Amino acid sequence: MSTKNTPPFTAGFPTSLARYTDALEAALRSAVPQDDVPLHTSLRYHMGWADPQGVPIAAAGGKRLRPILCLMTCEAVGGSLLDAMPAAVAVELVHNFSLVHDDIQDRDRERHQRPTVWTLWGEPQAMSVGNALYALACKAMLNLAHRPVAIPVVLQALAKLMNSSLAMLEGQYLDLAFEQRVDVTPQEYLDMISLKTGALIACAMEMGSLVGSEDPSTASLFLQSGLHMGQLFQLQDDVLGIWGDSATTGKPMHSDIQRKKKTFPVVYAFQHATGAGAITLHRLYQKEQLHGDDVRQVVEVLESTGARQEAHRRASTLADQALESLRPAELAPQSRRDLEDLVSFLLYRER
Amino acid sequence: MSTKNTPPFTAGFPTSLARYTDALEAALRSAVPQDDVPLHTSLRYHMGWADPQGVPIAAAGGKRLRPILCLMTCEAVGGSLLDAMPAAVAVELVHNFSLVHDDIQDRDRERHQRPTVWTLWGEPQAMSVGNALYALACKAMLNLAHRPVAIPVVLQALAKLMNSSLAMLEGQYLDLAFEQRVDVTPQEYLDMISLKTGALIACAMEMGSLVGSEDPSTASLFLQSGLHMGQLFQLQDDVLGIWGDSATTGKPMHSDIQRKKKTFPVVYAFQHATGAGAITLHRLYQKEQLHGDDVRQVVEVLESTGARQEAHRRASTLADQALESLRPAELAPQSRRDLEDLVSFLLYRER
Repeated sequence: MSTKNTPPFTAGFPTSLARYTDALEAALRSAVPQDDVPLHTSLRYHMGWADPQGVPIAAAGGKRLRPILCLMTCEAVGGSLLDAMPAAVAVELVHNFSLVHDDIQDRDRERHQRPTVWTLWGEPQAMSVGNALYALACKAMLNLAHRPVAIPVVLQALAKLMNSSLAMLEGQYLDLAFEQRVDVTPQEYLDMISLKTGALIACAMEMGSLVGSEDPSTASLFLQSGLHMGQLFQLQDDVLGIWGDSATTGKPMHSDIQRKKKTFPVVYAFQHATGAGAITLHRLYQKEQLHGDDVRQVVEVLESTGARQEAHRRASTLADQALESLRPAELAPQSRRDLEDLVSFLLYRER
Repeated sequence: MSTKNTPPFTAGFPTSLARYTDALEAALRSAVPQDDVPLHTSLRYHMGWADPQGVPIAAAGGKRLRPILCLMTCEAVGGSLLDAMPAAVAVELVHNFSLVHDDIQDRDRERHQRPTVWTLWGEPQAMSVGNALYALACKAMLNLAHRPVAIPVVLQALAKLMNSSLAMLEGQYLDLAFEQRVDVTPQEYLDMISLKTGALIACAMEMGSLVGSEDPSTASLFLQSGLHMGQLFQLQDDVLGIWGDSATTGKPMHSDIQRKKKTFPVVYAFQHATGAGAITLHRLYQKEQLHGDDVRQVVEVLESTGARQEAHRRASTLADQALESLRPAELAPQSRRDLEDLVSFLLYRER
């Protein structure tokens, strides 16, 4: 299948992947302390399981994309779901650690239509909430040693989790540094999101494959595919941050532009805007922050350069590459279809 | 030896422990990337190896108390220094992660007479610097698997590192929450510092013992001793934060009081101040923050209650308990003397 010619038959999360949800949520909950320690209440709030007072609520968390990729990869190469569960839990907790900290760093006040941790408990405490999620992630990974997984694979997987976290942090550091620049190139942008977003998604798939097959060459195919998926995911995230419906995405609209983030459409527009558009962009990006009418003007320039279409074109190419990377892998036909559906979702998603 | 009757024969770090310095510093440096990635430059700056531009400088780091405790414990139970090195490096990196984040949380602008990371690179980037130190700590621990250490011990040590980090974060969360209260009891305070400071020091010694002897019952003696040492360390830290010489401690004076931290002397004074002193304390602690003359008045009340002497008395008791805990352990006489010297240093240190 080439996603290039695929109609957006679904903008929803592939329904076949719902089969992972119950086991995954149970494993995630068992990795996070359920006691009354105040720090732990904040953790459960962030994970979408409790209100700010710690009272259980109907789940309000994220898509769980990374752990599902880890689990489906493990099954795709013939492994058992439960063997990859510690790695799946770990990547989701690492991801949530990054969300809690990103919200502080980016001053975002809402996520999934709920106040972010720092707006409820203050920045200092929110830092510790994020940190605890990371420590819990590492701890959850150790459960791999209680599964029938060879010890060298357990140790490799731990190293991969830590290396991908470091890559993610390096990407986050670059992302913030880019806010101060207007000369970021598309290649610099792609390298940055490969670190910030790609590394952890790729790690999720690589670990799933390693645990499932213990075959390094198959794992490296999934690593490569994951890097493409991560970039694809981030490109679409950039587009949704500008043109998405904030009621659907659950994120405040235009906060990326207000913060002068060098998302792909902005990087592209800086390279391709001419005349009045270019002058407007350069003038506005000398401001400390962008507000109301500034944002509207920026979006107009982005649209005039075709940045949105170019973002989608590049995302489509990445979607093809993500699937192409997996062509040499021996996968069950159903698993390959699931992966195709997921890639299609990443490309056409609206949330 | 009872530290109770020991004169403060040295306020300096025991010279015999200098034998660990070179190997430890080399191992620490090899655990932190030495390349030009901007994030890594900030890491080397914080560790005291580079200026803000990344140019190497004469070392300006901390006392390396935790890793030295880990190494000396390993040797004390008959193990080899190098086998404990990955654990020693890991605890020092976890400690430094906590320092970078604490400086943000507490708004401290100086450490070791140098600007803190957040004052140079801003809070968002400093968060990532701290996070990277934690990820590097976990990664460094994996080197235990390359030493002649049994795999179950490696996995146990990893779990202990993560559990002690979680305890430390829980303590940090409580410490910040206590800023808003005036009714913190001495027991609540001791429980909090046992988490915030005790857990990691205890973990350093427990891991050193486990790696050195693989004997859980000996390790539990060191764990217990380490918890006492950690509380002792923090009590003296509290005293130095109020009555220490900031040129010697390298920390800004009175910032704890300005932030309304419930350090031991403050907790004690709230319990024991009477009359005008009590009224002054309660009046001042209704303010958002304390400044110049407020701080002077608070210190006067602390002194009138004998809080400083009481802190030292409790610290002396903890010093005795730290050594008493190790009485059943079979240690080489020189190791026991080194531990006694170190405890004495913790009790009488001025930096």
